[in-house]
Amino acid sequence: MRLMRIGEFGSERPVVAIDEDSYVDVSDLVSDFNEEFFGSDGIERIRPQVDARIAAGEVKKLAGERIGAPFTRPHQIICIGLNFRDHAEETGAEVPPEPIIFTKSPNTLIGPNDSVKIPRKSKRTDWEIELGVVVGRRARYVESVEQAANHIAGYVVVNDVSEREFQLERQGQWSKGKSSETFNPAGPWLVTPDEVGDVGNLQMRLELNGEVKQDSSTNQIVYDPAFLVHYLSQFLVLEPGDLINTGTPPGVGLGHKPELYLKPGDVMTLSIQRLGSSSQTVVDAD
Amino acid sequence: MRLMRIGEFGSERPVVAIDEDSYVDVSDLVSDFNEEFFGSDGIERIRPQVDARIAAGEVKKLAGERIGAPFTRPHQIICIGLNFRDHAEETGAEVPPEPIIFTKSPNTLIGPNDSVKIPRKSKRTDWEIELGVVVGRRARYVESVEQAANHIAGYVVVNDVSEREFQLERQGQWSKGKSSETFNPAGPWLVTPDEVGDVGNLQMRLELNGEVKQDSSTNQIVYDPAFLVHYLSQFLVLEPGDLINTGTPPGVGLGHKPELYLKPGDVMTLSIQRLGSSSQTVVDAD
Repeated sequence: MRLMRIGEFGSERPVVAIDEDSYVDVSDLVSDFNEEFFGSDGIERIRPQVDARIAAGEVKKLAGERIGAPFTRPHQIICIGLNFRDHAEETGAEVPPEPIIFTKSPNTLIGPNDSVKIPRKSKRTDWEIELGVVVGRRARYVESVEQAANHIAGYVVVNDVSEREFQLERQGQWSKGKSSETFNPAGPWLVTPDEVGDVGNLQMRLELNGEVKQDSSTNQIVYDPAFLVHYLSQFLVLEPGDLINTGTPPGVGLGHKPELYLKPGDVMTLSIQRLGSSSQTVVDAD
Repeated sequence: MRLMRIGEFGSERPVVAIDEDSYVDVSDLVSDFNEEFFGSDGIERIRPQVDARIAAGEVKKLAGERIGAPFTRPHQIICIGLNFRDHAEETGAEVPPEPIIFTKSPNTLIGPNDSVKIPRKSKRTDWEIELGVVVGRRARYVESVEQAANHIAGYVVVNDVSEREFQLERQGQWSKGKSSETFNPAGPWLVTPDEVGDVGNLQMRLELNGEVKQDSSTNQIVYDPAFLVHYLSQFLVLEPGDLINTGTPPGVGLGHKPELYLKPGDVMTLSIQRLGSSSQTVVDAD
């Protein structure tokens, strides 16, 4: 299934996407795609009813409605640093011997096509396409990578927007440059693992104003989603609906020579195979 | 006022403490001390009714009930690093030119007298008494320190429990050693600013098994609560109910020679003047 939420910010309703422009409404079955939904096996609970509605032709057209993030504001957003082999090779950095983790404020979450705001006094706002992993079941000291796979609700395209001066030159730690409002576009869909197939072999691409900036594959990921859930659960407890941003491939603005950063009017277009595409226009913070 | 929550974990009810062992019940007036409560000026809304109930003698005895954290799981917990002058002097470190920030997982929040669990495979679990600041109003680009003071709901005793190997030797960043379950005891009370008086001159003390380990004052704080709200709001948006842990004075286990860490059976007792005291017994994670 492909979970989606449509409607104005803060009052989205949960639906299941059929294709790019049609869906099955499930807002009478669940209140929202939130911690309670994921934690109570909501995906499997609604599946037969969604199938029945599709069979009965109860499909609606999207008709220009806003698409929200495909799940509500999570309990936490955890990000993984330097997790792409091709990115490590490009920068000459060693692959870290275990995952580097940092966080983003959960209220950075916005819809896939919402505007991204350059923070006041920012000069170095940057893009990062990433594979997002949404936690399906509470994860605490999960013993094996195999078991950890059962704690994943699905996958989502995210943009881990970053302010490099805030992140790297303002006394640290990295969270300071990762948490400005609008810094986590996500969507259009939360795609369940059965529909993704091999999550370790998905093309991913980010274009800036139509020019390809990041072009890689999840086959470059060092620590994969199931390993990350296993690993993180040794240090903290993951709640249902938590988001893990699994790291970005080469081609961010910080890696350009000379460095290249976002300005108002820029358009970022992101896509990951099987997970859909998103597009954000850049504006100055009001 | 001194907000307090009593009852079993996950089903606490909101009350207002009168003294160490009596309270006024307000669970018929508000559903909980949560984001919605703080964001809708809940403290000022219940104040006249609490005064009326005290005048009418509607006061109950605590009678051994468990005390929870005095507010629900926050949207985010932000911590400030190296924020005490006496701590900087002790270590020979420079006072940072602006605040160092990092985060804890919000689900680390527990009651003031709950047990603290040493994580599996931990060898270096440590204590940190801190002044906690709870956000009262959404804070986004707050222009001045004076204005920022109006965004503070109150103050609370917290223990920023830390695992030093996870924090410092496991590839970073610090959040990795700050987020294990039970790592943020808070309470007993959330004390409103009018009742605290000068928050910049409160004695604070942590004892381990009756021996004083940390003994300082909030007058050693470099970046004070109102400044921190102002500062943080330039980088991210603080939501009502968010918790800011403002840093710890000297005397943590990491600073002992030789280093000294928590073991099962240890008892930490924390107190901050006007904010009350808490006590946690240390156990191994199950």
